[in-house]
Order: sequence, then structure tokens, then C-alpha cells
Amino acid sequence: AIAGRAAALFTSGALAGLRVVITAGPTREALDPVRYLSNHSSGKMGFALAEAAVDAGAVTQLISGPVTLDTPAHVSRRNVVSARDMLAASEELAPHCDIFIACAAVADYRPLQAAATKIKKIHADSMELALVRNPDIVATIAALHPRPFTVGFAAETGDPVDYARDKLQRKNLDLIVANDVSRSDIGFNSDSNAVTLVWPAGSRVLDMASKNTIARGIITAIADLYTHRGQEGAVPQSPPP
Amino acid sequence: AIAGRAAALFTSGALAGLRVVITAGPTREALDPVRYLSNHSSGKMGFALAEAAVDAGAVTQLISGPVTLDTPAHVSRRNVVSARDMLAASEELAPHCDIFIACAAVADYRPLQAAATKIKKIHADSMELALVRNPDIVATIAALHPRPFTVGFAAETGDPVDYARDKLQRKNLDLIVANDVSRSDIGFNSDSNAVTLVWPAGSRVLDMASKNTIARGIITAIADLYTHRGQEGAVPQSPPP
Repeated sequence: AIAGRAAALFTSGALAGLRVVITAGPTREALDPVRYLSNHSSGKMGFALAEAAVDAGAVTQLISGPVTLDTPAHVSRRNVVSARDMLAASEELAPHCDIFIACAAVADYRPLQAAATKIKKIHADSMELALVRNPDIVATIAALHPRPFTVGFAAETGDPVDYARDKLQRKNLDLIVANDVSRSDIGFNSDSNAVTLVWPAGSRVLDMASKNTIARGIITAIADLYTHRGQEGAVPQSPPP
Repeated sequence: AIAGRAAALFTSGALAGLRVVITAGPTREALDPVRYLSNHSSGKMGFALAEAAVDAGAVTQLISGPVTLDTPAHVSRRNVVSARDMLAASEELAPHCDIFIACAAVADYRPLQAAATKIKKIHADSMELALVRNPDIVATIAALHPRPFTVGFAAETGDPVDYARDKLQRKNLDLIVANDVSRSDIGFNSDSNAVTLVWPAGSRVLDMASKNTIARGIITAIADLYTHRGQEGAVPQSPPP
């Protein structure tokens, strides 16, 4: 397997010679040195994508929030904590890549103030926490000139495809990977996932499978769309939208 | 080591024949199926305490928030997510134990409302999150009649001992383990820790060491204090308060 992967890395594969940057895991937004706001995310999907990208021949970089996963072989990894850290790393690495995959579950709000020392317990029964909007990392990268082929994720409850198509257009993305996080059998800390791929000219369902299998399906679709970009009706095997 | 531990478990040890319940890790307080509020805590200190309690001969139960640690040998484990889950498990198990050690980093506030479906991103630059106070688990257990020997933790920034003594009296605890979480070399995800033990009649510093060594020091102090409970000036080797 190592020899096979090394061969793919240097000689062949659907992404041979391309540079891929992938964000993964959650971000944590500090209230103080003890407390934080975060999102459920094990990082497994992003790490599986990194492994699949390496197998497809790409030079692959991970920008990872706090997770407890080992770095896949042949992947270089940058660790970050907050959304602003992740944006800074993305802005540094994305201009030098061909494909940017924003798989991280970025906290969309952070506390207005992060205290330097622990906030002592207030003996009030309730309190209001002031939050401010975090930067939108995938939209920021998609707005670069020139921009990489940009892939976003949409973790939604209920039917996520309509929301994904709206997000695709609003953020000027090339592909959205949508999944329904209200299903307890997929997503988050699970080893399985089921997703719908939504791009400007079509969509395709990847049925429930291991995150490794789903990752290979996503990377294959990205390679097809990247190769045929600018052509009407890319990814010939797709059903009409 | 296994033979030694099994021997201690069944025949001897400072806590032989006693039942110990230990809470460990963080709690997570859901805003919706995706977002949550939490505390930094790897669970390592609580799990090290469970291992040390087993080594001292105690029948040991862990109530653990979301962590990525393996359960120590001979420890029974109950997994929980929120502070209210942890309280329910503690109220169920504590009345049947001799010693209750509240090592978990419990979130002191939770969102007033936890939405059943993901809150769609609001395109506001800021928002207010309404929080309500969580139950105080260690104070609830310390108020039981009869009550177990009850140990709390105080993770504070700056000099924590004065705050710990106030907390000891206010919550009617038998022992507080205080540590300074503003030091980057100890606490949280570190494998080392340094703590100050504070009980009604004295205090003692445990210098920086591995969490396993600190855990054995805490368990030894608990065994001394438990054995001499009701006697003035328990733990003879302690300096005056």
C-alpha cells in the first residue's frame, strides 16, 4: 500500500501534480481561558479527504482545528484553534493551491470579548453572552482573484439540498457537499456518512458508506469537475439537476 | 503490575473496601444539534484519579463527559454529555458511595433554549445568547443526608487558594484540589499538573509532577482525611493552615 501510494503520489492519479488544501475539525472560540464555544466535529471527514487526495496524487495540506486524529501519511498539517486562526492559515495557503476544500465545522459566532483570566462564577440565574460574527472562510477564499477550485460543506438538519444550492450561488463555490446532521447514523463522530454533491450544473447522491469511501467519491467528483471546469454539464454520469 | 493491582483491589490498599465515584472531563451544553458551549478538559486528571483509586483498593466508578480516553482497568464508566446528565448520574451513584470526587470541568451555564434543528446562520454582525445557570453538582452531592466524603476541584487563574477555601466552606466540602489554569505547563491537555490541597484544617502543595503522580498524592490525602474524619487536625504531616 505504501509503495502504491508513493507511486500514485509521484506518477499518476486523478489529482496528480495538483495542490489541495483541506480544512478539518471544529474551531473553538474562547470566552476565557477555561470556557469556549464550539461545533461538533471529529475531523474524520476532512482527514479522510486528505488521505483520498494523497491517494489521487495531490500534494495535500490540512488546516486542522482541535481534534485527536493522527495526521495521514504524506499530508502536511497546520494546527489552529479559532476561526480567525483558520482564516489566517487559509489565506496564507489557498493562493498557492489548485483546490481548496472547506470541510471544517467553523463556529459562525465568537464571544465579543475573550477574557484573559477566568470569569468567576456569577451567582445570577441567567446571563447574556454577546457574540459577534466570525469571518466566512470559504466565501473569502472563493472571492480571491485568481481563486482555487473551491469546495464547501453544508451540515444541515432536514433536507439540505435546496439550502446547499442557495449557498453554492451566494458564496460563488464550485461544489457543495451537503449532509443531514439530524441523522444519528451519519456525520459528527460517526465513521459513516451519506452526502449529496451539489454543483452549478448538477447533483449526485453518495449513499451511506464509510467516511473513507465517501471521501474517495468526493475526491473523484472534484477531479472530474476540476478537469472539465468551464464546460457545460461537467461530470457526465450525473443526473440532470 | 497487573498482579499487584489485582492484589490491591481485593486484599489491601488505603481505600480497600470503599466505593469511590469520580466525575471527569468536560460537559457540553447544546445550542442546537451542531453548536455547543464547553470547557477545556481532556479528562486525564479524572481518569488518573480513577486508576489511583483502583490501585488503592477502591471499587471505582467514573462518570465521564465527552473525552477520547480509554477506561482504566477495573473501573466502571458511565458516559454523559451535559451538566444535567452528569448531575442525574451523580445523584444516582453518589448515595451508594463512600467518597465522591468531582473532577469534571462542568459548564456553569447552558443556553436557555436548545434548538432541535440547526439554527440557520443569521446575517447579523452580532447576537445575544441567553444563558441559564447549570446545577452545582458537587454542592448538590455535599448537601445529601447522609453524604459521601466530598471532594471538589477549583480551576482558577492566579492564586487559587483563597478562592478554594471560600468554596470549601460555602459548598460544605471535605477537600478542594486547587490548580492555577493560567500556567501553560500544567492542567488542561497537559500530562503534568501541580495542585494545592485545601481542607478545613489545613493545606498542602503537591509540586509539579505527572498527572498519575499527582493523582496518587490526592488519593493518599483523601484516604488520610477519610480515615481521620471528625478528628481535629487530620493529616498530621500538613503545615498549619
